[in-house]
Amino acid sequence: MLSREERNQAIHRATQYLDRARIVLTPEEVENLEVADFGLGDLERTGLEIVVYVNTQRCCAKELVLFPHQTCPEHRHPPVDGDPGKEETFRCRAGVVYLYVPGEPTPNPKAKPPAGDEAHYTVFHEIELKPGQQYTLEPNTPHWFQAGADGAVVSEFSTTSRDGSDIFTDPRIQRTPVVVE
Amino acid sequence: MLSREERNQAIHRATQYLDRARIVLTPEEVENLEVADFGLGDLERTGLEIVVYVNTQRCCAKELVLFPHQTCPEHRHPPVDGDPGKEETFRCRAGVVYLYVPGEPTPNPKAKPPAGDEAHYTVFHEIELKPGQQYTLEPNTPHWFQAGADGAVVSEFSTTSRDGSDIFTDPRIQRTPVVVE
Repeated sequence: MLSREERNQAIHRATQYLDRARIVLTPEEVENLEVADFGLGDLERTGLEIVVYVNTQRCCAKELVLFPHQTCPEHRHPPVDGDPGKEETFRCRAGVVYLYVPGEPTPNPKAKPPAGDEAHYTVFHEIELKPGQQYTLEPNTPHWFQAGADGAVVSEFSTTSRDGSDIFTDPRIQRTPVVVE
Repeated sequence: MLSREERNQAIHRATQYLDRARIVLTPEEVENLEVADFGLGDLERTGLEIVVYVNTQRCCAKELVLFPHQTCPEHRHPPVDGDPGKEETFRCRAGVVYLYVPGEPTPNPKAKPPAGDEAHYTVFHEIELKPGQQYTLEPNTPHWFQAGADGAVVSEFSTTSRDGSDIFTDPRIQRTPVVVE
């Protein structure tokens, strides 16, 4: 688990990335910025910084910050209680992000799973997203992503987020549920 | 109807507002940028410039540009074919936007309906949105909005957009349907 100081440092750093992308947050949004280490205790390597703008019973929008080479680990959004599962679009705003989805493994991929965790990564078809580029994922599609050397800011437009229902390939990972309005 | 030149000029101008907000578009997005004069033929006064990032059967995200004092006229998103109607969140990215919704009319409002069109505006409770501020509208809520003196860039996060189903207070206005993926 992250210490308060680690969390505050990560928030401060994330706001610098958002500032550079000229994304303005309210003080409350900065305070509530989520720093996710996915329970693996190595935020620099596996983690994500998240601003949730809105998350209702129907749709959701977030800003995601990734530090240089930081990885959001492989997961999928399964059907839940009659809902077909989360459909999401990632749109790169700043930096570069490498998104991996099912399909032909890309030769010489730009990113690699965090060393030692390779067993928990199974999809290797690379989608490179530079600023202004986006990709839409159907529900229940396994995916993971990693920022390039300058980090990345990524907007996420989706149906309702129910993070507690996400299924991670790495069985050590448990996401805590989020509040849906 | 807008001439090709008027449309191209409006697109060029809208991209300048997006550039200043550091929002990057692909060349295809610039080419397909929608310039809506709502059939009233006075774009400077009543109009909206729109980039649709994604619009599926479940959710939608757009960037809206308003020129200085430009007004998106009063309308609502009714239930359609079993769908409860479009729910939408407006988040100001740059400039200032004045959003009007049902409720106690705000004394000394910052914006006024376009002169001569007052009869087609019925809600006057003012929500002022500066960069980083946002507001979520329930389906079927009448609303209109106008930019301040510097124009505005506004992100819209919503359920599916079916513009052809929107109901405008001004009976002269007919929106053309958009493609839902």
